[in-house]
Amino acid sequence: MKITLTVSGRDMIAEIKQGESLLDAVNKAGISGFDAPCGGKGSCGKCRIAISPIGPTMPIGAKPGSEPDDVERDLLSEAELGSGIRLACRVYPEGDMSITVPDSGSTAVIQTSFSGDFHQRIKDDCSPLKKTFLELAPPSIDDQRPDFKRLSDALSESGIMAAADLVMLRRLPDLLREHDYKVTVLSLSGRLCGLEGGDTVSDSRAVAVDIGTTTVVAYLVDLAGPGRGRVIDLVSALNEQKGRGGDVISRIEYCMRQPGNLDELGSRIRTQISGMVAELCSRNNISISSIGMLTIAGNSTMTHIFSGFNPLGIAFAPFIPVHSGLYSGSGTSFGLQAGEMCSCMVLPGISAYVGSDITAGIIASEMHKSDELSLLIDIGTNGEIVLGSSRGLSACSTAAGPALEGANISCGMGGVEGAVNSITVSERGEHEVFSLSVIGGGKPEGICGSGIVDALAVFLGAGVIDETGRIRTEAELTEDGISRGWIECLSESGGKPALKVSADIMITQMDIREIQMAKAAIAAGIRTLLSETGRATTDIKRVFVAGGFGAAMNKASAAAIGLFPSDLEPVVEIAGNTAGKGAILAALSARVLDEMVKVSEDVEYIELSTSLKFQQEYMNEMYFRQ
Amino acid sequence: MKITLTVSGRDMIAEIKQGESLLDAVNKAGISGFDAPCGGKGSCGKCRIAISPIGPTMPIGAKPGSEPDDVERDLLSEAELGSGIRLACRVYPEGDMSITVPDSGSTAVIQTSFSGDFHQRIKDDCSPLKKTFLELAPPSIDDQRPDFKRLSDALSESGIMAAADLVMLRRLPDLLREHDYKVTVLSLSGRLCGLEGGDTVSDSRAVAVDIGTTTVVAYLVDLAGPGRGRVIDLVSALNEQKGRGGDVISRIEYCMRQPGNLDELGSRIRTQISGMVAELCSRNNISISSIGMLTIAGNSTMTHIFSGFNPLGIAFAPFIPVHSGLYSGSGTSFGLQAGEMCSCMVLPGISAYVGSDITAGIIASEMHKSDELSLLIDIGTNGEIVLGSSRGLSACSTAAGPALEGANISCGMGGVEGAVNSITVSERGEHEVFSLSVIGGGKPEGICGSGIVDALAVFLGAGVIDETGRIRTEAELTEDGISRGWIECLSESGGKPALKVSADIMITQMDIREIQMAKAAIAAGIRTLLSETGRATTDIKRVFVAGGFGAAMNKASAAAIGLFPSDLEPVVEIAGNTAGKGAILAALSARVLDEMVKVSEDVEYIELSTSLKFQQEYMNEMYFRQ
Repeated sequence: MKITLTVSGRDMIAEIKQGESLLDAVNKAGISGFDAPCGGKGSCGKCRIAISPIGPTMPIGAKPGSEPDDVERDLLSEAELGSGIRLACRVYPEGDMSITVPDSGSTAVIQTSFSGDFHQRIKDDCSPLKKTFLELAPPSIDDQRPDFKRLSDALSESGIMAAADLVMLRRLPDLLREHDYKVTVLSLSGRLCGLEGGDTVSDSRAVAVDIGTTTVVAYLVDLAGPGRGRVIDLVSALNEQKGRGGDVISRIEYCMRQPGNLDELGSRIRTQISGMVAELCSRNNISISSIGMLTIAGNSTMTHIFSGFNPLGIAFAPFIPVHSGLYSGSGTSFGLQAGEMCSCMVLPGISAYVGSDITAGIIASEMHKSDELSLLIDIGTNGEIVLGSSRGLSACSTAAGPALEGANISCGMGGVEGAVNSITVSERGEHEVFSLSVIGGGKPEGICGSGIVDALAVFLGAGVIDETGRIRTEAELTEDGISRGWIECLSESGGKPALKVSADIMITQMDIREIQMAKAAIAAGIRTLLSETGRATTDIKRVFVAGGFGAAMNKASAAAIGLFPSDLEPVVEIAGNTAGKGAILAALSARVLDEMVKVSEDVEYIELSTSLKFQQEYMNEMYFRQ
Repeated sequence: MKITLTVSGRDMIAEIKQGESLLDAVNKAGISGFDAPCGGKGSCGKCRIAISPIGPTMPIGAKPGSEPDDVERDLLSEAELGSGIRLACRVYPEGDMSITVPDSGSTAVIQTSFSGDFHQRIKDDCSPLKKTFLELAPPSIDDQRPDFKRLSDALSESGIMAAADLVMLRRLPDLLREHDYKVTVLSLSGRLCGLEGGDTVSDSRAVAVDIGTTTVVAYLVDLAGPGRGRVIDLVSALNEQKGRGGDVISRIEYCMRQPGNLDELGSRIRTQISGMVAELCSRNNISISSIGMLTIAGNSTMTHIFSGFNPLGIAFAPFIPVHSGLYSGSGTSFGLQAGEMCSCMVLPGISAYVGSDITAGIIASEMHKSDELSLLIDIGTNGEIVLGSSRGLSACSTAAGPALEGANISCGMGGVEGAVNSITVSERGEHEVFSLSVIGGGKPEGICGSGIVDALAVFLGAGVIDETGRIRTEAELTEDGISRGWIECLSESGGKPALKVSADIMITQMDIREIQMAKAAIAAGIRTLLSETGRATTDIKRVFVAGGFGAAMNKASAAAIGLFPSDLEPVVEIAGNTAGKGAILAALSARVLDEMVKVSEDVEYIELSTSLKFQQEYMNEMYFRQ
């Protein structure tokens, strides 16, 4: 069946089969950034589309397409259903259809940039990717060494090991003869990994990639010449897997649903990264062949799917990844369409829920080299927490849920254009209580994690929400003498209490519960790590808050809602995309890469799912206490 | 254009494009054993087909299809042309056509079998392919090692190195979980190369392959259990590349003709070998997954094409192969369709014209371990010669041409059904001079190498051919009193002298010249090796004659025409398919494989193309001297 999808006035066509939903059509059409956090389970109600008339006689919302089911009747209003709004995951077309897909605000505004020169940090370190120019003696009747022997003899003089790799051997004879036996050899950690004709030593770049569940960032880095250590450019976008679920568990569930789904998700991210590499090259006028290496950091689920490893072991106790060590291969063996002989290196992680993004973060923060006790917190659907110093590191992961990323929140959205990302109390007048900051500066379309945390901190501070997270009644507020401006925020949603932030944005009692669970998980994780290692909050000298939410987060608000112990607030540093930084450093410095491998092997992993201490702390931290 | 090809009464269809010849159609149809020794250059005149009428009104030999050109008028008789016989390589169809392809006698009768048990020879040696059964501890919350770490920890206890290979990691999680963490690990020379569920240790087999330019033989060998060391079965067939040229040079020329041709030839042989593996398994009721390894021996051109390596460096001075060392990879990486995790190992060779078939032959003959001086001769289009003992080996290769394989001989054919392979003088009556032996016992269709050598030995012995190779005139024979029976053999072909062997088979003056060049090349090669190493023929204690021609060759006849110095005749042994034997031994014994690698590195290669000594000997050996 042919589904015509209209997005921002542009038409696309997707072919689907009987038994496939409109969500499949949206995904097949490759519409990026379409929001389906639950991955088609029918629980989030986000995948709204409008069914359009096919011909002039066909009324909006008419057949073909199944009738709205209970899930839709529950999650959509009568008015929405009446005007043809449906959930894409619930509509199974019976024939050709036309639908309108809302503009998803897919221009991700992701705070991922940072001071782009790592030259100071890496000093004279060599990249794990080394280029060596060789002028081989051409063969003669007195020197009949085979092509490969000729090459490997020269390589052994440079201390490079050469394995007889089929792909390389298939290219070797033409390459040598076309370039008069002058070639540049690429080696990764001392092993031959690529070959180029002529002298390309000064033309050496890498792309460092951070695959987030929500956001993918790729950094173009200069490995040689005067620009060595410089981040030339970066590109970021929403993860193209987003239409298959918002968090790692729904992605894994999607992979398990039927054979081929793992391949589909894998090729989405591989195609996306290949496209990013191509874009970085084209807009910087760089030949794609000068990209000798990709370094990849990400949580274990993302690196598994990228590598084509079945992630099912990650989803269920006892939470086992396929591999968490460093591994590499040609871009082709990974399925990338980037540079032919490019090496792709997946950085080492620690466990199923502490991936290479965290190892990279440790390296970026240098907490593993500091004598002072530091804490690294990476807040996403999972909150990964690392505590330690040069004397040793401990890590844990806690299921915070996606609330802090704006998912599972009634008016929630990611940190993209249109999201309210910061709220301050500007004046306590009768009607204008809040001052909202909107990403991109336009009309607010929803609220992202940092905005909700601000809102909760404000309502808690004003006494509108009590210690248990309950929205207090008008009677209670009046009795306490709380001002009219706050009382007017009280509202209702589906018959239950809610708080109005603006004309369009409301925070429900359910939303508060979601945030409570998220902040409790993270705070309890910190407390458990401290307890397991026998340290106190006062021992911690630095706190690095990593990730997109961390970058937008207001420290005071986060402390106010109890996301971390409030005595840490003065030492909190917004660390930005530490996963990306670590991936860049691994591309630039073999020494840093070695450190990263060692860190990944030495970190003590503390499993929280069976920890009684964690359970106690979690119950405790559910309260809002100042 | 659609070409209908009738072979042995069966119709096949091949699609060809404008500019492709009927030879392309024959090749596309996959007709095996069709003879085109020159590979379509229009020099051999062997690729005869009959153009059939398409409809009842279409006379034989009519259009579509170009008019016979000069080459065809030269190589085909008027009668042949008149009855629609054409050379497939000269006809470029302009529309659909039907042709009849002669039955090529493709049932190769190849003397490749031999005593099938190598148990005595390998004794307690281990195969380079080792299977190890592991019962891994299932993961638990107290043992969260990743799948690969769990495996590699267990492997390191068994002394097996495990690299994090992407293909293996993609299979690992499902395999472990489906088989309750009980797996059999395949390792090749101590490195992890494959994985199977459950305990398959006793179910371990290899296929040893000898890729000849003309003939491909595959042996199924038992690596484990009570049958260890036994050749279970073998299968042989004409090389499916045969339609693209009879010798290595025409195959290389074909590869160079246009992009894609190397791929075409490569996939022909890979598909053929995959089919042989499947056939060996199916007719012995063996699961294809029990084949853990393929060992491949062949001349350098054959192993290059099999591996997808551009062989162009082999064809031209200074004769450089891409790689002559041992290399291996998964069957998939080679492009085989055989067992998914099967390892394929290409055995080490010595130079562009002394390939792994010769290294394998050295190993099979054990000349590298003997204190006595031995000579190994492998006679094909190239004659490879090895001289030496445990104190050292020297090798050379000499361009004998294909005459000894029956090619470039007017009535010549390969050693297949219908070929006269042996001639003896049975009675010197008036008309019945010869007794012919025909392969398969039927009517003689042509003569193969061993038959021609016999014929020449007989005519030389009788004085019908003189020392220079000239067929003497009737007058000369009469003057010398040579009997009437011999004189009646004198005949003519194309106005030039020829000798009749039977009613249908004739040996021309040109044929004698071809054989003279072939035998001179080999004899001169032997003389040069002796001279370079300072040895005499009397020092040689054993001579191993390898290959198909060698197996059929009459020692006395070969000595009589001077193929080798006649004082060697008493120590000549017919060694059979030593390349196949060596490939089998390499599959069975890691120790033998190590010896083979060492031999390939230590053999002194002597280049004849620039040797003055060789040129002198060659001129000398052109004479027939008793």
